[in-house]
Amino acid sequence: MVRDAVATIAATQGFREVTIRRVADAAGASTSVVTHYVRSRDELVRSTVRREIETRQGQADAAVAGLRGAAGLRALAEWAVLGPGEQSHRLWLAVVVGAQSESVLRAELDAFNAWWSDLVQGLVRELDPPPADPAGLVDALDVIVDGLVLNGFEASDPWSPRRRRTVLEALLTPLGV
Amino acid sequence: MVRDAVATIAATQGFREVTIRRVADAAGASTSVVTHYVRSRDELVRSTVRREIETRQGQADAAVAGLRGAAGLRALAEWAVLGPGEQSHRLWLAVVVGAQSESVLRAELDAFNAWWSDLVQGLVRELDPPPADPAGLVDALDVIVDGLVLNGFEASDPWSPRRRRTVLEALLTPLGV
Repeated sequence: MVRDAVATIAATQGFREVTIRRVADAAGASTSVVTHYVRSRDELVRSTVRREIETRQGQADAAVAGLRGAAGLRALAEWAVLGPGEQSHRLWLAVVVGAQSESVLRAELDAFNAWWSDLVQGLVRELDPPPADPAGLVDALDVIVDGLVLNGFEASDPWSPRRRRTVLEALLTPLGV
Repeated sequence: MVRDAVATIAATQGFREVTIRRVADAAGASTSVVTHYVRSRDELVRSTVRREIETRQGQADAAVAGLRGAAGLRALAEWAVLGPGEQSHRLWLAVVVGAQSESVLRAELDAFNAWWSDLVQGLVRELDPPPADPAGLVDALDVIVDGLVLNGFEASDPWSPRRRRTVLEALLTPLGV
């Protein structure tokens, strides 16, 4: 419940607004209840982000389970764009923005990125025929996923899942995915 | 100078941290100097974002000047990704994030998006041969540009211009741009 409060504050206002006091207020608890579980505000942030990352990793693993190569990459990209809900995308964007100035966020984001890269690279290695530029393909996939996530926040009326799926299709197909 | 202070605070800490008091402190001025120029904090924000948008529009217009169709689209995408410096990309990301909760940012972003869409759609109409799905192509271009911008913030060591250009090329070419 405390971590839900952290996630909500971070997603809507950014990680700078996450303090023990504000989290306690949002959770309807006293600050001593919050500090009973965590020693510091940074630990609270780390724990919340780690939970989000573990959830994402579990969902991504489930999305690609049993799939190889192109089928796995496509399922992974579809999950990344369409799987997490809007609140989760907002939290993710807050992590990326916050990682510029908060080392606790930077460390968690780097760990997630390393895991993600391994997963994508493994699937790219399974492609048949192999791509001419495997590293370039990994980069292109990252850009497509990031673009669809950020784009969801740009328009005042977010794109429908169908519209996202159409763009994803149009961008992935020429890449052999 | 006051607007530079607003831009710096917003780019590094987000628009929520922009207050008359903090802007005055950052600019080394008194709050009465700041309020001599603007009536409110929101007007300060609007004026700063509008200046950024006008700069971007001027640069984008210059990038596509004299170019039509595919050449114009490619020049526009290259400018959007490689033209603005890191600080300008950070400020832009802060605008997108802030637009979720601040109507003054939402209004400016919507106005910019409408201008951008007109520009891209005009160039897409000049494509020869015409694309099978013009609206889908506009969406795909937006996703590619957004993806390259957001990606710049994800890794702890941002991609080199060369790496960005390579990905841009790989994604644009199959689209006929």
